[in-house]
Amino acid sequence: MSYGKLDGKFKKNAHQFVQCLSDCSPTQMTGSMKAQRIYLDHNATSPLLADARAAMLAALTMTGNPSSVHAEGRAIRAMVNAARAEVADLCGAEPSQVIFTSGATEAANHLLTPCYLMGRSALDIGGLFVSAVEHPCVLSGGRFLAENVIVLPVDRSGCLDLSALKAGLAGHDRDRGLPMLALQLANNETGVIQPVAEAARIVHEYGGLLVVDAVQGAGRLALSRAALGADFLFLSSHKLGGPVGVGAIVAAGQALMPIALMAGGGQEKGHRGGTENAPAIAGFGAAARAAGRGLEAMAYVRGLRDDLERRLRALAYDIVIHGQTADRLANTSFFSLPGLKSETAQIGFDMDGIAVSSGSACASGKVGPSHVLKAMGADPELGAIRISLAASTTQADIERFVSAFATINRRRLSRRPAEAA
Amino acid sequence: MSYGKLDGKFKKNAHQFVQCLSDCSPTQMTGSMKAQRIYLDHNATSPLLADARAAMLAALTMTGNPSSVHAEGRAIRAMVNAARAEVADLCGAEPSQVIFTSGATEAANHLLTPCYLMGRSALDIGGLFVSAVEHPCVLSGGRFLAENVIVLPVDRSGCLDLSALKAGLAGHDRDRGLPMLALQLANNETGVIQPVAEAARIVHEYGGLLVVDAVQGAGRLALSRAALGADFLFLSSHKLGGPVGVGAIVAAGQALMPIALMAGGGQEKGHRGGTENAPAIAGFGAAARAAGRGLEAMAYVRGLRDDLERRLRALAYDIVIHGQTADRLANTSFFSLPGLKSETAQIGFDMDGIAVSSGSACASGKVGPSHVLKAMGADPELGAIRISLAASTTQADIERFVSAFATINRRRLSRRPAEAA
Repeated sequence: MSYGKLDGKFKKNAHQFVQCLSDCSPTQMTGSMKAQRIYLDHNATSPLLADARAAMLAALTMTGNPSSVHAEGRAIRAMVNAARAEVADLCGAEPSQVIFTSGATEAANHLLTPCYLMGRSALDIGGLFVSAVEHPCVLSGGRFLAENVIVLPVDRSGCLDLSALKAGLAGHDRDRGLPMLALQLANNETGVIQPVAEAARIVHEYGGLLVVDAVQGAGRLALSRAALGADFLFLSSHKLGGPVGVGAIVAAGQALMPIALMAGGGQEKGHRGGTENAPAIAGFGAAARAAGRGLEAMAYVRGLRDDLERRLRALAYDIVIHGQTADRLANTSFFSLPGLKSETAQIGFDMDGIAVSSGSACASGKVGPSHVLKAMGADPELGAIRISLAASTTQADIERFVSAFATINRRRLSRRPAEAA
Repeated sequence: MSYGKLDGKFKKNAHQFVQCLSDCSPTQMTGSMKAQRIYLDHNATSPLLADARAAMLAALTMTGNPSSVHAEGRAIRAMVNAARAEVADLCGAEPSQVIFTSGATEAANHLLTPCYLMGRSALDIGGLFVSAVEHPCVLSGGRFLAENVIVLPVDRSGCLDLSALKAGLAGHDRDRGLPMLALQLANNETGVIQPVAEAARIVHEYGGLLVVDAVQGAGRLALSRAALGADFLFLSSHKLGGPVGVGAIVAAGQALMPIALMAGGGQEKGHRGGTENAPAIAGFGAAARAAGRGLEAMAYVRGLRDDLERRLRALAYDIVIHGQTADRLANTSFFSLPGLKSETAQIGFDMDGIAVSSGSACASGKVGPSHVLKAMGADPELGAIRISLAASTTQADIERFVSAFATINRRRLSRRPAEAA
């Protein structure tokens, strides 16, 4: 249950939080207001970028359904298609290859289906392979029956086991349809980058299709659908500084497409029914443009993150930083402190004015250890804290975090003196 | 194909339209700027209400994933749940009965499925009955196989034939599962109001379920899920002055629910995966509140519409006003002028600065006569123009429309002097 349960607990404070937060813009929140709150949870959702906000505000002053042929409708459609070109650009794709959705979860459920069409001919997908560390929206297998979803192991660093992929594909019964692999570009909890191009080569060798969840990679890594070898990839706007409520599928072409998840009025060339969410799409376009330009900031972000991890290790020699031996996103650090419950730590940081996550936001309402840590063979009793930075994160934010960490860690050590000795 | 095709034709003008439209707020568009443009296409999409805009703008300054347990996340969740209560109020329902979706098309595809759960037990729906005048997102049958979708006729005024419903239900093979009826509260093209409560009684007599598409009725008719006898109804925010990109399902309870269309991170109690579109949801909540308060304006709107229709008939004795003999929404008029192509008329109005529709926006990109008119037994060669008003429509708007209509009608008559004599 993702709402309701915690409401009672926080109801008293909810209104004042809304008030406090709505009084300050995200820029202020990570800028002049950061003495109050520091936001280190960009992998859950990232504040709306100024360009994206401006594009949305302009769109919100317009009225018109993009399917209407009058001037108002055509203006909105032109705006939607301008954003389509921006999103295509981010992935080195053509605008005609972009289908807008309500987000990455819809995109995953749309793409992960046994029923594809090549032109007008049915093309069956006989089995879906996924890595064990995929996001829940992929791990759940979309429209595949559970028995046709094969979960592949990852190594201790969190990378897909390519020999297991090969073995799985070799054993796949082609008579049931083509095999499909769904693989993330980077993990939302650990930031670990998957060997996507290599996996693509293997999948294509076996005549299969590759769907890439590029949600956490976009805006943090150079992104090219072709270079990844993805037959399809999907994006989420709000993870790269665009508005929530919009995402995209980027296809290799137009011939091969899944049966639509949502039938309706024929929008998006019949692939996605429903009035296009034009203001969000406009914001997404602006965020995609900014993300393409903003990649150079990742070196700065990596510097902050690496420095942070060095300092945390100096404070807590027994810290476990998950996926540290693998290639990771520059902005993410996911760590455990033996003997410290992640919920306790998260509440501690929150009370200190710092927003961090324990595991992914999507799963954080649930009880139980992270499926990502489990798949990586980590001690399931270890809770873990995720911090995820952005270009707007400052050195001062890091200082505040380290200071809060030091306090929390001291408290932990004082409870287990023998071990800390 | 709903985009691209017309782009070439309008590309040159698109930028200036965007510029012109983004320079003026919707209020201005239907207020002081109306000398330039008059918007009479509220059934396609309605301008964002001031309250909805304010709620969205406040939400856009906030950052946080509603599933995150830190202060930012809890503030966003509190906002989402406040909106949930507003939407529930609009339908006389409880907040726990509301599931947010990305819009009405998603809601329809979610609800129209053969696979329901009663608690944890599977409950099969064996067949879907729909009226022939449903919106394409319902007519397409959602997740039902085409052979299990039964289209029921309407009479010449556009109302569901209740005896055909009874006959269909009587012939339904219960061994295949329960029957389901999907019926709109009011038609998007004609505004004709369906006998929903009566249909509900019949469906329940046969042990079936009723799904009500309340998209066009909400904000224009008093709305009570219970009074309608709907097991489920669904809403679209942007048709009632809220933002696009959000809609809702309102269920009779929590026990009986369809298998989720989108699996993901467990949001919306597991019924709808994907990060909640909090800014749009906040805007929807504000629009729902305003819609509930704004019903009294419908008498004014009805006055405008009825006056308009009288004057059009005085100018064109042979005008056919579709569904006029039925109970209709106060804001909608759908008419044909023999010998006049609706596309020609629509372009004429558009060039005169008036946005109207030929048929529904969703279908207007397509070639071919309206399925609604066909179902009503109207001459399929008759094109038709839809105007749809709102409380913001003024008497001056009506004057401008009548004057443009007079010109277009004169041109029509001059081309067919014998008939006009």
